[in-house]
Amino acid sequence: MAALKLGMVGGGQGAFIGSVHRMAARLDGCFDLVAGAFSSDPARAHASAAEIGIDGDRSYADFTEMAKVEAARADGIDAVSIVTPNHLHGPIAEAFLAHDISVICDKPMTATLAQAKSLLAAAEASKGYFFLTHNYTGYPMVRQARQMVAEGALGNIRIIEVNYLQDWLSEAPAEDNKQAKWRADPVQSGGGAIGDIGTHAYNLACFVSGLRAASLSATLSTHVDGRMVDDDARIALQYDCGAHGHIWASQVAIGNENNLTLAVYGSKGALRWAQEDPNVLWFSELAKASQLITRGGAASNEAASAVTRIPAGHPEGYLEAFATLYREAAEVIATKVGKNTSIGSLDGLEGVRFVDACQRSTQNRASWIDLR
Amino acid sequence: MAALKLGMVGGGQGAFIGSVHRMAARLDGCFDLVAGAFSSDPARAHASAAEIGIDGDRSYADFTEMAKVEAARADGIDAVSIVTPNHLHGPIAEAFLAHDISVICDKPMTATLAQAKSLLAAAEASKGYFFLTHNYTGYPMVRQARQMVAEGALGNIRIIEVNYLQDWLSEAPAEDNKQAKWRADPVQSGGGAIGDIGTHAYNLACFVSGLRAASLSATLSTHVDGRMVDDDARIALQYDCGAHGHIWASQVAIGNENNLTLAVYGSKGALRWAQEDPNVLWFSELAKASQLITRGGAASNEAASAVTRIPAGHPEGYLEAFATLYREAAEVIATKVGKNTSIGSLDGLEGVRFVDACQRSTQNRASWIDLR
Amino acid sequence: MAALKLGMVGGGQGAFIGSVHRMAARLDGCFDLVAGAFSSDPARAHASAAEIGIDGDRSYADFTEMAKVEAARADGIDAVSIVTPNHLHGPIAEAFLAHDISVICDKPMTATLAQAKSLLAAAEASKGYFFLTHNYTGYPMVRQARQMVAEGALGNIRIIEVNYLQDWLSEAPAEDNKQAKWRADPVQSGGGAIGDIGTHAYNLACFVSGLRAASLSATLSTHVDGRMVDDDARIALQYDCGAHGHIWASQVAIGNENNLTLAVYGSKGALRWAQEDPNVLWFSELAKASQLITRGGAASNEAASAVTRIPAGHPEGYLEAFATLYREAAEVIATKVGKNTSIGSLDGLEGVRFVDACQRSTQNRASWIDLR
Amino acid sequence: MAALKLGMVGGGQGAFIGSVHRMAARLDGCFDLVAGAFSSDPARAHASAAEIGIDGDRSYADFTEMAKVEAARADGIDAVSIVTPNHLHGPIAEAFLAHDISVICDKPMTATLAQAKSLLAAAEASKGYFFLTHNYTGYPMVRQARQMVAEGALGNIRIIEVNYLQDWLSEAPAEDNKQAKWRADPVQSGGGAIGDIGTHAYNLACFVSGLRAASLSATLSTHVDGRMVDDDARIALQYDCGAHGHIWASQVAIGNENNLTLAVYGSKGALRWAQEDPNVLWFSELAKASQLITRGGAASNEAASAVTRIPAGHPEGYLEAFATLYREAAEVIATKVGKNTSIGSLDGLEGVRFVDACQRSTQNRASWIDLR
Repeated sequence: MAALKLGMVGGGQGAFIGSVHRMAARLDGCFDLVAGAFSSDPARAHASAAEIGIDGDRSYADFTEMAKVEAARADGIDAVSIVTPNHLHGPIAEAFLAHDISVICDKPMTATLAQAKSLLAAAEASKGYFFLTHNYTGYPMVRQARQMVAEGALGNIRIIEVNYLQDWLSEAPAEDNKQAKWRADPVQSGGGAIGDIGTHAYNLACFVSGLRAASLSATLSTHVDGRMVDDDARIALQYDCGAHGHIWASQVAIGNENNLTLAVYGSKGALRWAQEDPNVLWFSELAKASQLITRGGAASNEAASAVTRIPAGHPEGYLEAFATLYREAAEVIATKVGKNTSIGSLDGLEGVRFVDACQRSTQNRASWIDLR
Repeated sequence: MAALKLGMVGGGQGAFIGSVHRMAARLDGCFDLVAGAFSSDPARAHASAAEIGIDGDRSYADFTEMAKVEAARADGIDAVSIVTPNHLHGPIAEAFLAHDISVICDKPMTATLAQAKSLLAAAEASKGYFFLTHNYTGYPMVRQARQMVAEGALGNIRIIEVNYLQDWLSEAPAEDNKQAKWRADPVQSGGGAIGDIGTHAYNLACFVSGLRAASLSATLSTHVDGRMVDDDARIALQYDCGAHGHIWASQVAIGNENNLTLAVYGSKGALRWAQEDPNVLWFSELAKASQLITRGGAASNEAASAVTRIPAGHPEGYLEAFATLYREAAEVIATKVGKNTSIGSLDGLEGVRFVDACQRSTQNRASWIDLR
Repeated sequence: MAALKLGMVGGGQGAFIGSVHRMAARLDGCFDLVAGAFSSDPARAHASAAEIGIDGDRSYADFTEMAKVEAARADGIDAVSIVTPNHLHGPIAEAFLAHDISVICDKPMTATLAQAKSLLAAAEASKGYFFLTHNYTGYPMVRQARQMVAEGALGNIRIIEVNYLQDWLSEAPAEDNKQAKWRADPVQSGGGAIGDIGTHAYNLACFVSGLRAASLSATLSTHVDGRMVDDDARIALQYDCGAHGHIWASQVAIGNENNLTLAVYGSKGALRWAQEDPNVLWFSELAKASQLITRGGAASNEAASAVTRIPAGHPEGYLEAFATLYREAAEVIATKVGKNTSIGSLDGLEGVRFVDACQRSTQNRASWIDLR
Repeated sequence: MAALKLGMVGGGQGAFIGSVHRMAARLDGCFDLVAGAFSSDPARAHASAAEIGIDGDRSYADFTEMAKVEAARADGIDAVSIVTPNHLHGPIAEAFLAHDISVICDKPMTATLAQAKSLLAAAEASKGYFFLTHNYTGYPMVRQARQMVAEGALGNIRIIEVNYLQDWLSEAPAEDNKQAKWRADPVQSGGGAIGDIGTHAYNLACFVSGLRAASLSATLSTHVDGRMVDDDARIALQYDCGAHGHIWASQVAIGNENNLTLAVYGSKGALRWAQEDPNVLWFSELAKASQLITRGGAASNEAASAVTRIPAGHPEGYLEAFATLYREAAEVIATKVGKNTSIGSLDGLEGVRFVDACQRSTQNRASWIDLR
């Protein structure tokens, strides 16, 4: 498969996630980054482009212009990565989708539910595809877990538990911390921990279990004086089919770096996985010794093997999981197979609805919100 | 210190917890078990007594008689251990306290709040002491954690997280499983997972943090058909001083044996501990590498050292922690120091109030119950 | 079973291992400690006896007199625990065996090979039994491993790996450290790390595998200036049946408290166990997911279950394993079953021969020494 | 920095390590793969080239021709990756170095000591650079360890322990396992476990400690009938400066996937690292609680930070470490800084000398071989 041509909006100098998307796009050789609007400030945009190795004539400061010009070029981009603050995801994505350029967008989909619905409509109307990088779904052992649940290895799902703990916002961040800054602005982010990591947690629960929440009760709280968004989120969930569960997402849990853990308990068995040790998956069956399933190992299944690059014992990490989403997006774009099932926009809407419901529940002392 | 004379009610043949109490009483040589009413069935009681090595004239089938006879003997027991189903704790304890015999009682204190209040009054009126074996508080690293919190090593407490996960009730137990049987009867147990292990979780949170809950919202649920008590409990808690937290206690979490974990997060640092790996304690301070504090190791503090028997790297376990409570009870009984602060009955009442509040909250769709 | 009467030689005030033996003897109620020669200094001996709760008329300062007097009493001791420095094990044990009093002796058996042979002869000639407390063999998961190897779960044994790492002698110890002091004297100890912990490592390898070394090549070394015994020992071993292996025992490995680990690799499977996490055993079979076998769990076998006191997830530790040896000794003494197979003296001789061979190999630049 | 042009010899369809090198070369955007001789069979070579996306006119079946043609092109390759069986490393590397094309070669350097010396001379005579991919040295926590040792954090180094355990050769491999096949041929591989993974272990010990072995005693053994190379290697080492250590490399240790572990013990502290959990490093200082240093965390030093791509808690893995070597090679090639210190050929020679010494020691019953 020849490499597709990729553009990027956001992700200039000093941005963490832009660099991640670029490495992820490159790892499997599916995309060549050829254009970008790395900043809305022209000087910064062009400096970043030069540093990244983008030709000057394909460096833009305005995403609307970028979409128009690239769409008109014979060698225009096949897809664009959006790695801006959350409130810009919607407008930018719609600009590219309007030109039938596929979009690979960082999560959450948008900062508000209204933006998400508008974007969903735009995605449905476009010949381009919309992909959302819920990157933790790219880990082989997460795929393994999903297949095992679908095959009934756990029996009926009873309990789904996701914790996502970080500590980098335990104190007010330094003034010049760019990432912390826009996340702390409710308008730009649409929420704090709930939007930044809570959406990952909820998406992971749904992805592995195949279920969606029927109702939830949430408490978003803030532990640092002066902070205007939540930094700790707890959500009790009732899922379809009678399962229940809990999500705890915190950015003030000292000693936790990026400690995302998932446990799914069923009537026959259980699975446990941790993002910081992502190459293994614990599988427990009632009245048997627990087993440690390894990526690339003897017990790995088709879903895991399909996204495994190197042998067992040679750790794959965060970038590899992220790159898997890029590779899968490239395959859909190149083959045009999967439009109706194109992952992303529906999951994205579900995530924004989740945030919205958590915020409404919190305003009413953790009242139960119906999501169906 | 000469060994004290101990009696026991309950804990006959086949009982798990009776044997635990006997080993705990014996380990440090503080008690000699000399009398018992091991069953209300005379034949079983005497058979158990013979097996355990109790003289026939001090084997009883009736606890009321045992209290009266032992109180009258010159060599009568100094204390009695109560290891019966929960609903009998109150009446038995009161019978011995009425004769000024000290009581060491398995948790929870009682099956109902009314029983707990009655027992508290009886304990206050007696010259005997009342001790409740919240045995997880006997672990050296739990003592270490408590001292560190009290000394301010964590700053202001923000979050307290306790999980207590088991899987032995994931299916309906066998008919002849005596322990499972009485626990499954609401009248005898006063509750399912919430009373059996939820009370341990809540007690541990309070013991280490020095806080008590101001309000809670609970969801008790049942996953096995025909079961009449809860087997999974989730409780959101608001503590005094603005801390909040969560308890999850489950007996249907396949792959978990007795997986009790505690995490306390503050504004400056955090502590994490796990009962199945009890000899270590994780201590994290903001912007430093996390440290692994070990029982008996260089960083163990006075509170931990006071209850440490053997050097670092030589694991102490569940029985040692339990034995610490027995040793501490013996010291109070022998020295008569500590009456006003006698641990146990107030903690016991708090635990029963906790269960009661969780049950009321559940009946009203996880409504918030005020505990102050 | 009525409790047997126990005496003790050594183990007075401030001694670590004496206290361990007393707790181990007491835990299962098999022994009552009634007599002792806790020190060769009369004042210290009687002070220790009083502290421990031994009647004055059964406190001795001379072990020869103790043996004679106790043998003559109608209520004399059934067995004696020896917890002195190594070079006294032989003379003391022989004194009691000469009066047909059974001996429970801390390891190693003796400080020299000549002493060991003499003691073996004395044990064979006595009506008393000789037991050596290779206490790590008392752990349930070690028993599990031994049964699994014997049943062929691993196929042909290929490799046996034992590491025993400590760090308490990384620097010259304080002058008043009694335990460190006699161990550092070659005459009293018979060796450094090799005798103190190397013998445990070798015994564990033999116990689990059922094999004995055919030849070995050893390097004993010393890392602290002025130390007169080894503090680090490495031994390559050829076992009967073609298996080979390695032992590394060190007391200068900073960061290790009492880190004894065993791995046995066969043609079909492997087992791995660690003393600091003793309640689990890893079992790996070729081309299958590894399994975590737990003490008391579904996969525990008869050998493990026979020495398991409390349910899975409730950790048993070092004292429980030690107590198992005391209980097993009590059963042999009480039932007089097992004389011909009486564990201990042959294993003890094997251990002293191992130390002797390691010392001779070291003197000749790790030359291979034949042990058969 | 503009991407350099890369060629590859070996690594065609079905090869594991060729694919690894391609991903590693691509991840940081430092190299574009533009030419290759992926097989000596023309049909296979061209099929692989097409699959990989190499233009037909730059697909070669003969490495000598490739070196000549590429050297003559204006847009010829700057460097070539060699990923063939070991016995071909020398001839191929020399062919490219003769044309002043830099070489990035998989380890070990060569299959024989004579080849290594010849290649070293060729590297010194060339304007091209020679790099050897001892890829485990690319892990951030390995760099962290090296800096800490160099800075004296451990005091004087006493003990260096490296284990490298795999199980994929526990039985005779399937006939069609290409990787296993050439490794099993002494002529192609130059050795079994000792060359394949033993060299990694020894290199890691030297890289982190800054020491080289003064002498060694080795036992290479074979556990599978009919196998013509070793599958298990044990080496006792005396290092410069009085440190000693041990390497155990095995490919028949069931339950181990790619379990490379390093421990370095000094007079003041110790470090422990495991390749399967590569983002953390244990640091223990005498009489302090052990610390867990994390990649990207607060305690990471300059050496680690320089090769860290993404934040703490977002695992980097094997490919990232490998990519670091490619990036560093690109920097040397592009800047021409570092010729005299060009890493690789001296380390490579050291590795081949190590293998040679191990084989000679084994032939003489583990006799000590002097390496200085």
